[in-house]
Amino acid sequence: MAALMNVCVAGAGTIGSLLAAHLGRVTDVSVLVRREEHARALNRDGLRVSGRADFTVRVTAAVDPADLPEPDLVVVACKGSDLEAVAAGIEGEFGRATVMTIQNGLGAEDVVAARGRWPLLSSVTFMSGTRHSDTHVEYILDAATWIGPYRATTPADARTVADLLVGAGLKAEPYDDLRPAQWSKLIFNATVNGVAALTGLPHDHHFAEEPLGPLVHALMDEGKAAAAAAGVQLAEDPWEMNVFATQRGFRHSPSMLEDVRAHRPTEVELINGSLVRSARANGAPVPLQETVYALVRGREESYS
Amino acid sequence: MAALMNVCVAGAGTIGSLLAAHLGRVTDVSVLVRREEHARALNRDGLRVSGRADFTVRVTAAVDPADLPEPDLVVVACKGSDLEAVAAGIEGEFGRATVMTIQNGLGAEDVVAARGRWPLLSSVTFMSGTRHSDTHVEYILDAATWIGPYRATTPADARTVADLLVGAGLKAEPYDDLRPAQWSKLIFNATVNGVAALTGLPHDHHFAEEPLGPLVHALMDEGKAAAAAAGVQLAEDPWEMNVFATQRGFRHSPSMLEDVRAHRPTEVELINGSLVRSARANGAPVPLQETVYALVRGREESYS
Repeated sequence: MAALMNVCVAGAGTIGSLLAAHLGRVTDVSVLVRREEHARALNRDGLRVSGRADFTVRVTAAVDPADLPEPDLVVVACKGSDLEAVAAGIEGEFGRATVMTIQNGLGAEDVVAARGRWPLLSSVTFMSGTRHSDTHVEYILDAATWIGPYRATTPADARTVADLLVGAGLKAEPYDDLRPAQWSKLIFNATVNGVAALTGLPHDHHFAEEPLGPLVHALMDEGKAAAAAAGVQLAEDPWEMNVFATQRGFRHSPSMLEDVRAHRPTEVELINGSLVRSARANGAPVPLQETVYALVRGREESYS
Repeated sequence: MAALMNVCVAGAGTIGSLLAAHLGRVTDVSVLVRREEHARALNRDGLRVSGRADFTVRVTAAVDPADLPEPDLVVVACKGSDLEAVAAGIEGEFGRATVMTIQNGLGAEDVVAARGRWPLLSSVTFMSGTRHSDTHVEYILDAATWIGPYRATTPADARTVADLLVGAGLKAEPYDDLRPAQWSKLIFNATVNGVAALTGLPHDHHFAEEPLGPLVHALMDEGKAAAAAAGVQLAEDPWEMNVFATQRGFRHSPSMLEDVRAHRPTEVELINGSLVRSARANGAPVPLQETVYALVRGREESYS
């Protein structure tokens, strides 16, 4: 992988904005966005972070990749529900870049891989924040981003990007194989996002107590069996992640809950759908995960 | 059972109003309500039915049972979530009456039985309507009410009440044993109300198609196994009831969906809770019904 002189962040929602702003402190950053107005605002005002840090950086933003400097690294940071469109938008561009996905769930790498021959890195992130405007994001949970090789990349490439993120003030760790981490988060997200979207509860103490705690535990047990059937040994126990997060008292609103509240498409296919499909393919029964998956899809059907 | 010269309807929501108004055409009807304002409006304006019928009857209403004529039959028609309060309110009253419950789910009879020695009838109803005001209810779905003996009553008593309802312009059928009908509706309601409350969907074609149809079918299969474990042979197949209702195209909003939309307590305990508890007691595994039960309770927790 070339030296990381220029990083492009594709998609500037909460995670994309947090990445772009922090990286802007240590390297040249360009931002690929969907709306002209968003690009204009970023070029004019820069990008501000508040919360756990407080600074503003200059970035170069555009809606057309041809209007951006040639990047060494592209982080595709859009939500899973926008991934097809963003991947299609960079097809044939950024010929010398390595591309890294960071979406929840499974399968984002393959969506990008289908659009070009870039070397690919996988990542999952646990950081979170609140996007206050096109040019202002609040950094709330300073949790790690885990990075691993996916296609035509090496553990050393994952380390290079992790070091860059750490140098920029974020938490990051490289892995030789990301799947154990990705599956830990997949099981956590399929369960916590699904239960939150269906109950309307933020991720709080209810998820570790009666009456929901036993259901959350059973959903995670099914997820663990699906991981084992896929040959993956988990990096972390999703139930312990759940208990830890609820004890910290953040009452975080999972993105799927925010999506159903706002009647937006959710990431249910990349998260719950990919867990269920993997389990089916490997002969692991996951009836409760199937139930949550069907109910969230039903919830999306109720928008119209 | 004495001749039915005077019927008291306790609780004048949609079902109570439909019953009181129709019965008011053929017998003296009194109505026991919770709010003074409601009683005054009924005494002043009578009770109007629109929709499948259009008439107004005079009724005698009060918030205190002592202010009502002595009834021969009391229909406790409140929602399950108000049942404890209504049953407590008639304790020691109506000494010569037979009392009939009509709540969804299982166990309403026992709540009433604990409050007095009245002979008891059970019933379940499939009719539905919309309550437009304290004195106006619209009669929408003219489906039957099924009636059976419960304590110190006979099939002949059930027939007497069914005949009264039919004479009043409603549909009703007596049963020697109501449990096969009650369980059919229990399984239907636990599934359809639960899925509707969690997805936000009215009871429409989604409940018989992908992705929700297979879940609805599996939930009903668990319910059937729970009925069999309880020694009950179902009167009707809940899945056929589901397909029939969705094909009629009413897009009915189940009460549990309306309750969660309005952040009201639901009937989840009498419906989903009693199905799950009966299954547990009889050793029938119902993991998907347990899931829906826990999620709806979680939804109620989200109100505060």
